Amino acid sequence: MNIKTNSNFKNIKETYLFSEIASRVRRYQEENPGAKLIRLGIGDVTLPLPAVAVEAMVRAANEMGRQETFRGYPPESGHEFLKKAIADHYAADIRLSEIFISDGAKSDIGNLVDILGNNKIIIPDPVYPVYVDSNLMSGNKISYISGSSENGFLPMPDQIKEEGAAVIYLCSPNNPTGAAYDREQLARWVDYALKTGSLIIYDSAYEAFITGDLPHSIYEIEGARECAIEVCSFSKFAGFTGTRCGWTIVPEDLKADDGTSLNKMWFRRQATKFNGVSYPVQCAAEAVLSGEGIRQCMKNIAYYQENADMIAAVLDEKEIYYTGGKDSPYIWLKCPGGMDSWTFFDHLLSKAQIVGTPGEGFGEAGEGYFRLTAFGTHENTREACSRLRELL
Amino acid sequence: MNIKTNSNFKNIKETYLFSEIASRVRRYQEENPGAKLIRLGIGDVTLPLPAVAVEAMVRAANEMGRQETFRGYPPESGHEFLKKAIADHYAADIRLSEIFISDGAKSDIGNLVDILGNNKIIIPDPVYPVYVDSNLMSGNKISYISGSSENGFLPMPDQIKEEGAAVIYLCSPNNPTGAAYDREQLARWVDYALKTGSLIIYDSAYEAFITGDLPHSIYEIEGARECAIEVCSFSKFAGFTGTRCGWTIVPEDLKADDGTSLNKMWFRRQATKFNGVSYPVQCAAEAVLSGEGIRQCMKNIAYYQENADMIAAVLDEKEIYYTGGKDSPYIWLKCPGGMDSWTFFDHLLSKAQIVGTPGEGFGEAGEGYFRLTAFGTHENTREACSRLRELL
Repeated sequence: MNIKTNSNFKNIKETYLFSEIASRVRRYQEENPGAKLIRLGIGDVTLPLPAVAVEAMVRAANEMGRQETFRGYPPESGHEFLKKAIADHYAADIRLSEIFISDGAKSDIGNLVDILGNNKIIIPDPVYPVYVDSNLMSGNKISYISGSSENGFLPMPDQIKEEGAAVIYLCSPNNPTGAAYDREQLARWVDYALKTGSLIIYDSAYEAFITGDLPHSIYEIEGARECAIEVCSFSKFAGFTGTRCGWTIVPEDLKADDGTSLNKMWFRRQATKFNGVSYPVQCAAEAVLSGEGIRQCMKNIAYYQENADMIAAVLDEKEIYYTGGKDSPYIWLKCPGGMDSWTFFDHLLSKAQIVGTPGEGFGEAGEGYFRLTAFGTHENTREACSRLRELL
Repeated sequence: MNIKTNSNFKNIKETYLFSEIASRVRRYQEENPGAKLIRLGIGDVTLPLPAVAVEAMVRAANEMGRQETFRGYPPESGHEFLKKAIADHYAADIRLSEIFISDGAKSDIGNLVDILGNNKIIIPDPVYPVYVDSNLMSGNKISYISGSSENGFLPMPDQIKEEGAAVIYLCSPNNPTGAAYDREQLARWVDYALKTGSLIIYDSAYEAFITGDLPHSIYEIEGARECAIEVCSFSKFAGFTGTRCGWTIVPEDLKADDGTSLNKMWFRRQATKFNGVSYPVQCAAEAVLSGEGIRQCMKNIAYYQENADMIAAVLDEKEIYYTGGKDSPYIWLKCPGGMDSWTFFDHLLSKAQIVGTPGEGFGEAGEGYFRLTAFGTHENTREACSRLRELL
C-alpha cells in the first residue's frame, strides 16, 4: 500500500516489562519445579463482583430479552440514571451534562488527545504508560517531572522548567507509587494551572482506596472547574476490570482562550466515535453506587487494604522507605542495599519466591524501586510477608 | 485556559437532521393532536435480544460473582472464544490475530484514523456521517463520489478524479441507501485499491440482511487481504445496539510501503487506548454465533425483511425508483413529483402521518431522496403501506 501511516507510532517504545517478567518467572520455575511462587505483581482485582452488580446485570439482561423493556442505542454520554448516581456520589457539585459514561478510564485518557491541539505535555515519572503513549501517538512533546524520596513521589509544580500553558497529567492515588496528594498539594497544582492557563487531566481511578482526609476528586479544590478534567473508573472501586465502565467529568467552565468549550468538544468527539456503554453494564454500575452497593464494594476494598497493611508493616519494621500502602493497593518500596529494580526482582524471586514489578518499568525515575500489590489473597500475602521478614 | 484545542473541530458541520425532524413532528402533533403517527425513520432495532444472548449474559454475570469464575481485565483485542466464533463465521480465512473485538463498529470506524497519516480520503455521498466527521476531526481532506440513480447509489472507482493512493470508505449494504455491491463491483474496487496502493475501510455492519448471492465480506474477493480493513458489528445482526459489541479485521498482509504492519499498529492503538469488551457482552456475542443463535437472529431479521418487502411492494406498484429493501433494512426512494427531501418529509407527515428521514441529511447527493426503514412492527408497517398506497 502506498498510503501514509501515523509515523508517530515509531516513537513509542515497545514495552517489555510484563513479557520480561513472565520469561524470568518461567525460567525460574523450570529450574525450580517445586518452588511455591507468590505473585504480588498483580495490577488487577481478584475478588468477585459485588452481589448487587451481578443482580442488576442479570435483571437488565432479562429486560433486554423482552419486547416491553428492550433498549436500543444508549445515549452516547450515558444513561441519565447512571449519571445521577455518579453526580450524587461526588462531594463537589457536578452537573449531569458534565458527566460522560465510558467503557473505562483507559479509553477516555487515551482518547482525550483527540480534542486537544499540539501542547506542551507534563507527565510525572514514574507513571501509568497510557499518558505517555497516547501523547507520543499524537506527536506531542513530553516533559517529565520526577518522583523521588525527596518529594515522596508526588512531583510538584516548582519542578516544571518550561514556561506557559501545558497539559498536565496527574494520578492520585498514583499508579504505580501509591502516593496521594493532600488538599494543600492539590491546591498548589490548581493554582499553577489557573496561573499558567494549563489543563490538568486528573486520573482518580484509585480514589476508593483513600482512607485519610485526602481529596477523592480534584473538584474538591476551589478553581478546579476552570482547569481540570477528571477521569474515574468502576474498575478498582467495584472490581469492574472485566465488566468495563468508567466516566469522565468535563466541566462546562472549561474554556480555551478563544471561548471553545471543552465540554462541547468532548461531547462531539464521543457522539462521533463512540456509541455508549452496554445497558446491563450501566445498570450494574448504578447498583454499586447504591448504599448497599457501596457497602459491598468497601468490604472488598477493606480486604485488599488488610493485605497492604501487612506488607507495609514488614517494611516499617525493616525501616525500608516506601510510598503507598495506606491510600492505595500499591506499595512502592526502595530496593534494599542499593539494588537496581531488576536485581531486586531476581533476588526476591530466587530467595523468597515472590514475584513483584520492577519500578524501572514505569519510567526512569522508577529505577531502584519496586512495586508490590495488595490484590492477592490474605493467605498468600501473609506467607509472602513472613518470607519478606526473613529475607530483608 | 491558554492551551490549544483541536482546531479541526471547527470544520465539522453541526448536524441538525434528527433535531429538525423532531421539531417538525412536535409542531405537527401540537396542531393535530388526534393524528396517529407511524415512525418509519428509526435506524435502531426494535425486537428484543435473542434468548441465547440473554441466557449467555446471565450465566456470565453470575460467573463474575463467584470467586472461582471471576474474570478481570479481558485481552484488549478480545477473548479467544469469541474470536474463534467470528473466524468460523467467515466464508474467508481469517486468523485470530487479525480479529479485534470492540464495543461497536462506530468506535472502530472513528478510531481507525489514529493509525493513519494525512491521506486523501474518498467517501461516497450520501453516507453514514462518522466517516466524514472522524476524518474532518483529523484534518484530512475529503473527496466525495456521488451516488445517483445512474449508478444505483453504488459509486464506482471510475468516478474518482484524483490520482494515486487514498483511503476509501465503502459501506455495503449501504447506510442510508440500502444498495449493496455485487462480487464483480467489489472486485473492481479491490483491483483499483491494489493498483493505486489505496486502503479500503469496508463497513459490513448490515451484511446479515443480504439475501442474494452478494459478498457478505470484502475478504470473499481475491486480493482484499492486501488492501482492506473490515469493520462489522453485532448491532444489526443480533440486535446488539444497546448491548454493544463489534469487531474489526486487520489482515496481517496489510503493509505500508515502508513495511509498517497495520495489524501491529492497530494492536498497539487498541492496547494503549482501549481495555477490551465486557466479559458478559462477549459471552452474549459468542452465543449468537452458535447454530441456535444464528437461527434466532435470522428469525428477527426475517421479521424486518417482511417490513421491507411490504414497503418495496408499494413502490414497485407505484413505479417509484428506489434502492435497498432487498438486502437491507433501508429503503431509499426518489421523492415523487420532483419534490425535494424536506418538502416530501412535510408532505408525508401531513398527508399520511408517516415520519421518515430526508435524504439530504446524509449528504448533498441525497437531495430529492428519502429513507424509510424496516425496523417498525408488522402492524404499523402494514398500516403505513396502505396510507402510502393511497397517497402516492
